[in-house]
Amino acid sequence: MPSPVDHEARRRHTALIAADLIANGGLEQATVRKVSAAAGYSTAVVSHYFADKRELLLLAYRAAAEETQRRFDAARASDRRDLIGALETFLPQGDEGVRSWRVYFAFWSVTANDPELAAEQTWWLANARRIISEAIRDRYGARDDLNACAQSLLIMLQGMAVQTVFDQQQWMPQDQRAFLERQIGLILGEDAAPDPVRDVVGGL
Amino acid sequence: MPSPVDHEARRRHTALIAADLIANGGLEQATVRKVSAAAGYSTAVVSHYFADKRELLLLAYRAAAEETQRRFDAARASDRRDLIGALETFLPQGDEGVRSWRVYFAFWSVTANDPELAAEQTWWLANARRIISEAIRDRYGARDDLNACAQSLLIMLQGMAVQTVFDQQQWMPQDQRAFLERQIGLILGEDAAPDPVRDVVGGL
Repeated sequence: MPSPVDHEARRRHTALIAADLIANGGLEQATVRKVSAAAGYSTAVVSHYFADKRELLLLAYRAAAEETQRRFDAARASDRRDLIGALETFLPQGDEGVRSWRVYFAFWSVTANDPELAAEQTWWLANARRIISEAIRDRYGARDDLNACAQSLLIMLQGMAVQTVFDQQQWMPQDQRAFLERQIGLILGEDAAPDPVRDVVGGL
Repeated sequence: MPSPVDHEARRRHTALIAADLIANGGLEQATVRKVSAAAGYSTAVVSHYFADKRELLLLAYRAAAEETQRRFDAARASDRRDLIGALETFLPQGDEGVRSWRVYFAFWSVTANDPELAAEQTWWLANARRIISEAIRDRYGARDDLNACAQSLLIMLQGMAVQTVFDQQQWMPQDQRAFLERQIGLILGEDAAPDPVRDVVGGL
């Protein structure tokens, strides 16, 4: 008898292969044929998991977003008061992090006339604001402007990510951390700065 | 005798049509056939201006970036001390502004293994930092951290733009302006705030 097939593992493996192809060459690379070849499955197997290219993109996006959520949760589990450590997991650190952001870019480019994809994006943005709010609260306590601060930090993380993807040499992890520290101090108030606010001109 | 053809106008018209198609349906919409049909030219005419789809994307990106540059220059020419007015021109205000950002997203998604496209993106990022530095200087005078401030403002604009494209109702022009004012105050120092820093929680 053949071994039972782990469909969830296959599906997830396929989504990550698709994410790789999209990140390296754009959405046009994510054909069932190319994904099958890269994943080592037949096109019949891949077609079983994804009805079409659009679904492949949605699952690749979700796999990238879930990967970030897992890193965020792990950072929070390791130290609930380490706000910077949690926020860093959103940034494109390492090849995997850069890949995630390139998949986001591809996804963002096709949401205009696709309410389902747009809703997916809206959900993850709201989720990001919610979990950042929790991380701020665990570090600095409850405050009236928690949601506004989370929104400002998310905006700053998104801008940093865009810069980092295109200029990784100028945005090494220590540069990102220094910039994050300074922005947290600015947005949450000087008193909230975990360390004296450093001059990060050199890091820019 | 036929009228002389204005090649530059045709080329530009074609690039803007391509930008529209990309913004509404992603890069896959930017085929020579679809662009020709939408522009009202034969495929032979469009092929004359663009060797392939990649070139079509590059020109669509450049058309969108140049449009922003023109709006920025016009705001500066109207009042060189109006920093907020200049920065606002980067944001996705109106259908045209949203279109530009969707084209950027599509472009960003295909730069990974394309040094020419990546160099184009790097050029425009450096250009944005340079012109933002000039706008800060004209408003608040020279300062040692001019480049770092311009970088921070650009990061904030990019993050705001991403949020706005996906949530235009929450980011009406007045909300963008209020957020911009507050961020300028935070980044350039309270003294630099053009007006008392307002609480923008309601706008988020």
